[in-house]
Amino acid sequence: MRPDFSKRQKKLQELMKEKNVDAVLLTNNDDIYYYTGYRGLAEDRIFAVSPAGGKPKLIVTPLENEAVIKYRNTVFIDSVKDFIKELKGYRRLGYDEKQLSAVLFSELGKLKIKLRPFGKFLEIPRMVKDAYEIEQIKKAIKITGKIFENIGNNLVGKSESQIANKIDIEFRKHGVANAFESIVSSGPQGAYVHHRPNERVVRSGDMVLVDIGCKVNGYCSDIARMFCKRWGSKEKQIYEDVKEIHDEIAGNIRVNVAYMDIEKLHRKLFKKKGYRVVHGFGHGVGLSVHDPVGKTLKENMVLTVEPGIYIKNRGGFRIEDMVLVKRGKSQILSGFIPSL
Amino acid sequence: MRPDFSKRQKKLQELMKEKNVDAVLLTNNDDIYYYTGYRGLAEDRIFAVSPAGGKPKLIVTPLENEAVIKYRNTVFIDSVKDFIKELKGYRRLGYDEKQLSAVLFSELGKLKIKLRPFGKFLEIPRMVKDAYEIEQIKKAIKITGKIFENIGNNLVGKSESQIANKIDIEFRKHGVANAFESIVSSGPQGAYVHHRPNERVVRSGDMVLVDIGCKVNGYCSDIARMFCKRWGSKEKQIYEDVKEIHDEIAGNIRVNVAYMDIEKLHRKLFKKKGYRVVHGFGHGVGLSVHDPVGKTLKENMVLTVEPGIYIKNRGGFRIEDMVLVKRGKSQILSGFIPSL
Repeated sequence: MRPDFSKRQKKLQELMKEKNVDAVLLTNNDDIYYYTGYRGLAEDRIFAVSPAGGKPKLIVTPLENEAVIKYRNTVFIDSVKDFIKELKGYRRLGYDEKQLSAVLFSELGKLKIKLRPFGKFLEIPRMVKDAYEIEQIKKAIKITGKIFENIGNNLVGKSESQIANKIDIEFRKHGVANAFESIVSSGPQGAYVHHRPNERVVRSGDMVLVDIGCKVNGYCSDIARMFCKRWGSKEKQIYEDVKEIHDEIAGNIRVNVAYMDIEKLHRKLFKKKGYRVVHGFGHGVGLSVHDPVGKTLKENMVLTVEPGIYIKNRGGFRIEDMVLVKRGKSQILSGFIPSL
Repeated sequence: MRPDFSKRQKKLQELMKEKNVDAVLLTNNDDIYYYTGYRGLAEDRIFAVSPAGGKPKLIVTPLENEAVIKYRNTVFIDSVKDFIKELKGYRRLGYDEKQLSAVLFSELGKLKIKLRPFGKFLEIPRMVKDAYEIEQIKKAIKITGKIFENIGNNLVGKSESQIANKIDIEFRKHGVANAFESIVSSGPQGAYVHHRPNERVVRSGDMVLVDIGCKVNGYCSDIARMFCKRWGSKEKQIYEDVKEIHDEIAGNIRVNVAYMDIEKLHRKLFKKKGYRVVHGFGHGVGLSVHDPVGKTLKENMVLTVEPGIYIKNRGGFRIEDMVLVKRGKSQILSGFIPSL
């Protein structure tokens, strides 16, 4: 199975016509892959310009001399001047306002081009996943599930860094790389939402929060589970509360529901149980770990459900699953990975 | 040993006074770490504002609730509005033109602040490495050397992806992560400078180019070596040419030499041997794999020397070492890693 890049390009062209731009400048590697099929090294900085009436053109430096083999419509540039030359023929150019750098934005601003922020339109085709994309996401989830299978019994006595390192090795043994820096937080450090694993050693009474993901053919997984050898009764209660909230949110995800209504439900459930909301209930997942989701859920969107309760000096409680939006009951793609 | 953050801040403050800005907005995670000592997860988007007359202030979202424990002068923001509030009191604000997004640049442009591109001044203190930084870089090189020790005899019959994956596992066994996506290119695929490892299986007559690096406490290594079981005579000749060029360049790196003079020497040597120049002779290395280097080399700068010869249908020839600039003879930090 291979993605239908022409179909994606057509959708983008329709959006360009609708928003009245002649072309759009792509500056995000995930977007460039999505619309052209070309992917360089993760660190490479590449561009593409997609005209309303034709195929996207890749714009790369000579370091990407392989690009032209993989994608015929490629030009090489050596300087900002060359870059500008590829764009100055357009009258109304869409750009990705969150990704384009201030310096290039300023350079383009000197030309007779009308610049139009287009980032939120670029996102639209990426929201609903096609069959190929869902397959890759499922593969990433499957591998992540295998990692979780073997974590639980081997935590006590190891440092968070050691555990995270072991997880990263396991991912690579499955032939994949991390989708993001693994989060392993133990005991009171769980109260820090985006905690970087450090040298703290896990004790037998600690709760350990593990939030990890990998990439398969560019597509991400993002799943969190908690582990504990000896639960305190207070901890057990909070865990059950977060699980209840998680299940109720997941059960309400379906086609045609407004994203904000799920967020409202999330806030209502937290309030009812007397917890403070620190972050949203979830996010889209796809080529990026935080993929766009529209105002209204549509069939074949993929999003996470990850309510999180954080209590100073006690720890963090988060369960994160990935949900495929369906008519009727949605599918919890990571539901096979056991929670406590 | 710990870096002297106050000293770095003082240097930055001097630059601000010299360039007549009241404060500078930091938007690059490496800069933020360099000037404050705070580091979040790799994917986290954080900000800092450093006033000409005081300590930098971290600006983060509530997901970074650990930041305030590690760095007292931290504020939390929930929106672009909050972000703007932290900045609108300044009259002349420096910003990092290569890193700041067009959307935030536009938002700041609506205020009564005079915006001044400051990216190239932010780089200046980072160019010359202090003792702590050199120590971390040496550690990263040492680990990379150990990986290279065990590569050579195990290439034939494996795919490029398998080899790259194995390297990544070895890095993690040493407790470190990649500094960049490992490059493993074999046979004719070596002609692609930034080749992504794929399923091509290495044969016994293939040259294999391995370009890898890791991060120790944020500091990178970046080293390339070549391997071959059975050299063709033409390949042997090109390899010897690139080695000769490499050694001559490395031998000319010393205090007070102009960077462009090294680049000119590089071009001259390529021309003399009849090869085409595809990329520069090297780059700085530090917190980022491509770290800034000034116009003139100074003591304790660290840079790579990596001449590369690329020949279609034949392959790529690159040797990359890391050099510590010294008065008199510079030190090839990675010189202990055997070349062919």
